[in-house]
Amino acid sequence: MDDLGLGRRLMDRLEALSRFSDDPESLTRLYLSPSHKRAADTLAGWMREAGLDVRLDAVGTLIGRYEGTTPGLPALLVGSHIDTVRQAGKYDGTLGVLAALTGVEALSQTGERLPFAIEVIAFGDEEGVRFASTLRGSRALAGTLDAGTLDERDAEGISVREALRAFGADPDLLAEAAVPRAAALAFVEVHIEQGPVLERMSQPIGVVTAINGARRLSVVVQGTAGHAGTSPMTMRRDSLAAASEMILAVERCATQSRDVVATVGVIEARPGAANVVPGETRFSIDARAPDDAARDAAVERIEEAIEGIAARRGLAVRITQSHSAPATACDKRLIASLDGAARAAGYEPVHLPSGAGHDAMAMAALCPVAMLFVRCAGGISHHPAEAISLKDADAAMRVLLHFLRGYQS
Amino acid sequence: MDDLGLGRRLMDRLEALSRFSDDPESLTRLYLSPSHKRAADTLAGWMREAGLDVRLDAVGTLIGRYEGTTPGLPALLVGSHIDTVRQAGKYDGTLGVLAALTGVEALSQTGERLPFAIEVIAFGDEEGVRFASTLRGSRALAGTLDAGTLDERDAEGISVREALRAFGADPDLLAEAAVPRAAALAFVEVHIEQGPVLERMSQPIGVVTAINGARRLSVVVQGTAGHAGTSPMTMRRDSLAAASEMILAVERCATQSRDVVATVGVIEARPGAANVVPGETRFSIDARAPDDAARDAAVERIEEAIEGIAARRGLAVRITQSHSAPATACDKRLIASLDGAARAAGYEPVHLPSGAGHDAMAMAALCPVAMLFVRCAGGISHHPAEAISLKDADAAMRVLLHFLRGYQS
Repeated sequence: MDDLGLGRRLMDRLEALSRFSDDPESLTRLYLSPSHKRAADTLAGWMREAGLDVRLDAVGTLIGRYEGTTPGLPALLVGSHIDTVRQAGKYDGTLGVLAALTGVEALSQTGERLPFAIEVIAFGDEEGVRFASTLRGSRALAGTLDAGTLDERDAEGISVREALRAFGADPDLLAEAAVPRAAALAFVEVHIEQGPVLERMSQPIGVVTAINGARRLSVVVQGTAGHAGTSPMTMRRDSLAAASEMILAVERCATQSRDVVATVGVIEARPGAANVVPGETRFSIDARAPDDAARDAAVERIEEAIEGIAARRGLAVRITQSHSAPATACDKRLIASLDGAARAAGYEPVHLPSGAGHDAMAMAALCPVAMLFVRCAGGISHHPAEAISLKDADAAMRVLLHFLRGYQS
Repeated sequence: MDDLGLGRRLMDRLEALSRFSDDPESLTRLYLSPSHKRAADTLAGWMREAGLDVRLDAVGTLIGRYEGTTPGLPALLVGSHIDTVRQAGKYDGTLGVLAALTGVEALSQTGERLPFAIEVIAFGDEEGVRFASTLRGSRALAGTLDAGTLDERDAEGISVREALRAFGADPDLLAEAAVPRAAALAFVEVHIEQGPVLERMSQPIGVVTAINGARRLSVVVQGTAGHAGTSPMTMRRDSLAAASEMILAVERCATQSRDVVATVGVIEARPGAANVVPGETRFSIDARAPDDAARDAAVERIEEAIEGIAARRGLAVRITQSHSAPATACDKRLIASLDGAARAAGYEPVHLPSGAGHDAMAMAALCPVAMLFVRCAGGISHHPAEAISLKDADAAMRVLLHFLRGYQS
C-alpha cells in the first residue's frame, strides 16, 4: 500500500459521498434529510460489498459489523457521523466513517479476522443543525438518550419520530439501540483536526488526549453614557474601555494556562453611536480545556481580573454562566495504542486536545474512547474549503490499520 | 435682583416654551415644524412686549432688535437656537435665546440704552435632525450658507424652501439675511454645558475658550477567524483582542493630552458568534480638542499606537477619516469681558472648551464669538432629564447683564 492505494480509495469515497446534499450549490446534509437517506443507502451498499452485516438502529445510525475470529465477539466500535452543517466541507465526520469502512474492507479482502469484531458506525446527528438537541446517535448507542428528545420538532414542525419513520428507522425500538457494555470494547473516532496545530507542526497525525470541556459566560459592564465631546477623559466611566481591558485579561489568563483557550466572540457597546461614550458593554466568554480543574482555575482568574478592572474604574459588572460541560478524557491505553500504531506507520504522534465536541463525548458513557486527528488545510472546517491531502488520508489509513491489527482487548 | 427675580422670569419662560412640541409625550421641536412656528410666534410676542423690533429672516431665524443710545448703531448679537432634538430637554438652545431676551428686557424696562444695539437671535436649525445639513440660521446670518442647501428634503420629501414658505419666511431673500460685517460687533451665546465639568467644580458659570474641532476615524482590524475550541491561544490572530488593545491606546493617548477627548462609541466583531475567534473587528474613533494642533498630535499618536499593535500581533489594519472640522477659538477680549462680568456677579469663572458644536462656530465667520456655559445636572443633555437650577439661571442672568453693561465695542 505504499502507492497511496488506501488513501486514494478513501478520498474517492469521500468525494462520492459529498455529492449527496440537500442543496445543489454546496454540501448540506442534515439529519434524516433525503440526502442523508441516499448517503446512508450508498454507504450500506459499500458495507455489504465489503462483507459487513448492516443494520439501521432506532435513531438512524447505520452500523456495519465485521465478525472476528468467531462470530458474536465483543466489538471495537469505529466511526463518526455523516450529517453535516449547512455549506459544509467533505471531511468533518464522513472521514471517520469511511476510514473505518476502508480499513475493515482491507481486512475483509484478504479474509483477515481479528480476535474481536469491528463495527463501522455512521451516526447521523452530530452537528445539531435540524433539531434542538444533538448527539442522538451516539447517545442512543450509549444508552443515555432520553426518549423525550424524539418529540423535538424542526423549523417546519416535523418531529424526530416522524422524520425517523420517513427515513426507514423505527423510533419505538430506541431501547434496543443501546449497546450492552460487555459487547462494546472501545470507541475510536478518526476526524479532521478542525484546527491549525498539526499543520503548524508539519505532522499528518495527532492523538487526542481529551475533548475539551467548555464554559460559556456572559459579561455586562455598566458604566455611564456621556457626550463624546463634553465628557473629559478623567470623568468618564466608559464601559467599552473597561471591557477592552477585560478582553485582554481573558486573553492573558488563557495564554498563561497550558491547553486552556478562552475567546470573546461577541461584543456589543450601547448605545452604539460614534459620538457617545458607551454606557453599557456586553461580551461573551467561551473557555475550554482538556482538564476541568485547569479550565476552572483560568475562569476564576478571569473573573477576578474582570472584577478588579471594574472596581478600579468605578463601574459595575455582572458575570453569568450560560453553559458548562465537563471535559472527556481519552483512554490512556487507547492513546498508547494509537501512539504505537502511528510510530509503526512512520509518524511521530502529536498529542493534542480536541477543542470541538464529537460523538466520542457521548460514547464515553459506554466504553473507553479515543480519537485520531488528521491534519486539515489551514485548520479550516465547517466550510466548503475544508481539505485534507491524499497523502495524509493514506497516512491515517495506515495508522488505523496498524491500530486495528495491534489492538488488544 | 437678589430675590432671584431674573432667574425666575427666565425659568418661567423656558417652561412656557417647552410646551410647544411636535410630540405630545415629550419635547420634540424640529426646524420649521408647526411647534417651531408656534414657539417663534410666542417668542416674537414677548420680544415686542419687551420693546424690540422683530423680524424673521429668509431661513426662519427670529431677530429682536433693541436700539442703542442712537438708532442704527452696530449690534451685539446675543442668542442661540429654539429647535430641539427628538425627546429633548428644555434648556439646550432655548436657554441662550431666553437669557438674551430676559437681559434686554431688564434694560428696556428702565429705558437703559447702551452705546450699541443688541439683537436677540433665535436660530431655528442647530440640531440638524430634519434635514441633512445644519446651522442654516447662523450660516445665513454669517453669509456662508449655500443656497443649494435649501433644496434638501426631509424624510417626507418636503424641501427646506417649501417648509420655509409654510413657516412664513421667504427663502428667496437669503442674500439679505447676511449681516454686514460693520453691523455686527460680536456674537455671544449662553448655553448649558452639556457636560459634567462645572458640576464637579461646584461652579455655576463657565467661560468657553474654544469650540472643539473634531475628527472622526473608522478602523478595520483584519485578523483570522477561527474555532474558539480548536485554535490555540498562541496561534490566533484575534481581531477583537487587537482592537481591545487599540481602544485602550485611544483612551491613553487622549488622557495624556490636556483638553483632548477621544471616544470609541461603535464596535463590531465579525462573525459575532460566541464560539468563533473574531476575524474582523471595526470600530469608530471620535477625537476632539479646542486646539487643532493638539488634537492632530493626539490622533497621530493614536494611529501610531494602532499600527504598532497590529504589526506586533501580525494583523492588518486600515484607518480612514470620515470627518474633520477645525476648532473655533473664542475671542480673547470677549473671554476677558465675560470673566470680569462673572467676577462682578460673584463667581470665579471656570475656563473650559466646548465639546459639542454650536451656532457660535458658524457665527465666527462673521464676527468675534464667545460663549457662557451654565452648569447642568449630571452633565445630561439631549434628554428629558436635562436640568439647570433656578439659582444658576439667575447667576447666568446677572453675569450676562454685567457683560452687556460693561461691553466696549
